[in-house]
Amino acid sequence: MEDLGRHLARMRETAPLVHNITNFVAMNVMANVLLAAGASPAMVHAREEAAEFAGLAQALTVNIGTADPQWGAAMEEAAAVMTKGGKPWVFDPVGVAATRFRQDLSARLIALEPTVIRGNASEILTLAELAGSARGVDTGDSVEAAMEAARRLAQSAGGVVAVSGPIDYITDGKRAYRVANGHPLMCRVTGMGCSLNGVIAAFCVDQPALEATAAALASYGLAGEEAARRATGPGSFQPAFLDALAAQTPEALDAGARVSPA
Amino acid sequence: MEDLGRHLARMRETAPLVHNITNFVAMNVMANVLLAAGASPAMVHAREEAAEFAGLAQALTVNIGTADPQWGAAMEEAAAVMTKGGKPWVFDPVGVAATRFRQDLSARLIALEPTVIRGNASEILTLAELAGSARGVDTGDSVEAAMEAARRLAQSAGGVVAVSGPIDYITDGKRAYRVANGHPLMCRVTGMGCSLNGVIAAFCVDQPALEATAAALASYGLAGEEAARRATGPGSFQPAFLDALAAQTPEALDAGARVSPA
Amino acid sequence: MEDLGRHLARMRETAPLVHNITNFVAMNVMANVLLAAGASPAMVHAREEAAEFAGLAQALTVNIGTADPQWGAAMEEAAAVMTKGGKPWVFDPVGVAATRFRQDLSARLIALEPTVIRGNASEILTLAELAGSARGVDTGDSVEAAMEAARRLAQSAGGVVAVSGPIDYITDGKRAYRVANGHPLMCRVTGMGCSLNGVIAAFCVDQPALEATAAALASYGLAGEEAARRATGPGSFQPAFLDALAAQTPEALDAGARVSPA
Repeated sequence: MEDLGRHLARMRETAPLVHNITNFVAMNVMANVLLAAGASPAMVHAREEAAEFAGLAQALTVNIGTADPQWGAAMEEAAAVMTKGGKPWVFDPVGVAATRFRQDLSARLIALEPTVIRGNASEILTLAELAGSARGVDTGDSVEAAMEAARRLAQSAGGVVAVSGPIDYITDGKRAYRVANGHPLMCRVTGMGCSLNGVIAAFCVDQPALEATAAALASYGLAGEEAARRATGPGSFQPAFLDALAAQTPEALDAGARVSPA
Repeated sequence: MEDLGRHLARMRETAPLVHNITNFVAMNVMANVLLAAGASPAMVHAREEAAEFAGLAQALTVNIGTADPQWGAAMEEAAAVMTKGGKPWVFDPVGVAATRFRQDLSARLIALEPTVIRGNASEILTLAELAGSARGVDTGDSVEAAMEAARRLAQSAGGVVAVSGPIDYITDGKRAYRVANGHPLMCRVTGMGCSLNGVIAAFCVDQPALEATAAALASYGLAGEEAARRATGPGSFQPAFLDALAAQTPEALDAGARVSPA
Repeated sequence: MEDLGRHLARMRETAPLVHNITNFVAMNVMANVLLAAGASPAMVHAREEAAEFAGLAQALTVNIGTADPQWGAAMEEAAAVMTKGGKPWVFDPVGVAATRFRQDLSARLIALEPTVIRGNASEILTLAELAGSARGVDTGDSVEAAMEAARRLAQSAGGVVAVSGPIDYITDGKRAYRVANGHPLMCRVTGMGCSLNGVIAAFCVDQPALEATAAALASYGLAGEEAARRATGPGSFQPAFLDALAAQTPEALDAGARVSPA
């Protein structure tokens, strides 16, 4: 895939206002990640203002990590505003297998047609089952099974599905990319996956979702590689990651990205 | 303005208990900022205990960044305790222009007579309009318009108003100061403005609000300048800022402050 | 006490899923501390899923720092699942003296038989009074009074009680240990005590609670000593602490621990 750097440059020019209804654990790091990347974050979850705020935002992310019924309602109302307005929104089904509450909420959110669904292999497999699109799929958490589930989920949900892992897999149900950027230390820091949702959403503003998602994942993973070179553990990784994300140039992204058609 | 260092020394001697009802994004960094500055932070928002806790605290901050109706009620009850007890409280109308909910809540909070209102130019302009004190003011977000709005808001609300920006402007409606300390990296880190509210509140305990606010802004901005010299981006800026705030001496504040009558 | 390193090694082999219902201020740092230590954290508080999630977890921590009635109910339900299933849970009565709401909630939680209660001297004294076990105890906050209160509280509540301080004191009502590891900078960073609860809970999985708690405190304090050597203030202490916790070997823990029978 070409022109990844151009996607980054455009995102920074737009500096989109990204509305996030995310979990409490990730809120701070997610806001800092979006600021470092060049976007403008806002965390707004109260039902009294979520839909109204969504009307002002250029993109939305929804993450069910610490949701409750009130937050769930706000998520649905904000997501509906984005879908109706043709604006991108990203859905992260954190820990969807753990509780019935998460499964019910996720099913309602998928029905609102997220632009991008991002999760790890087991979350995507669970989601594909919920969506009734995983019949016949081997539900072991192998990468192959998750890729098949991602393709079917993308087709049934009508958006892009991104499976995070050592090598990420992104598909719109027809075409697909693999992104090999990243570093194991990224899994030792909380909120890294959640924060990535915001970067994906920012890249998707006025750019095609499949390519924008691939560019966002490459940019993010490359910053992780840079940070890992400077870090001595998961603690020093965090400030180094924000520094690397802020300093990344479009040229460096084009040079360092490892994105290939799948 | 003289004796800024003395304001810092007194705040540290008092080490005031500062009660904060602030947004989720800023809670952690705000608590760390207050600890580094030399105060004692507590985050207490439940309606079942907010007013009771306000009775124990020496100062309060209220920030509507992620409020909901329950939190709003707790804010009003805690603020009323402070005003009745003659104890300082700081109000931050984050994003007040964005939603009707924020405007209604802000109007109710202003009526409770905050000791200090702190916001950026556009927030102060919106607030002055809400308070009916911005009639005739050019509502473009120019610094001049915000200064005029700040003066009128201070007069109608009966407290100090601080407008954050490249050069801060602080007024009680009669006298005014400009504070030129600070660094652009402070805007690339989330929660920096919110955390400043706590430092202002801590400085205001047993010290005159206008001068205490100017001293707090100078102290905070100077720590930001120190941190920026050591940082390589917004990530490394954060630990460096807390280190600088903790290490700042009254003498260094007197030497580095750029505060002038306006 | 011998074999502290073996406790650390076992905890890392288990890599237990630790369910936390903790305050908003500490959530992010606590998740990062648990990841650095080698455990698997999850923050789940909604009443609609807390008990169900507790069924999946190997340990639980409960912290009343920013609780409200809904959270309190979720805490009780999740704690009951752990006690019934014979799984360890840790209770932290943050600021219990401050409000009636905290005292009532704490009394209900103690009745659910926490495996470990951890607090500072004044919190343990308040708790012992609530439990009716502090009669005749001098309620000045001296270390001696807190130790006596801890012994009586451990006997009446039926678990381990840990009093945090310059030298920690841990007792099950019969035997006791002192842990002298730690550094004053740990008190200048928010969430350090709360995050320790998670480490204690992780160590308690399939290990005897008194010894596991002593090992957790020694491991944590030793990482604080390491971090303090590399830090220049409370800001740089935080990443250094996570790095030190992640890098700590069982051998280093055995060599550096200062644990003695009391």
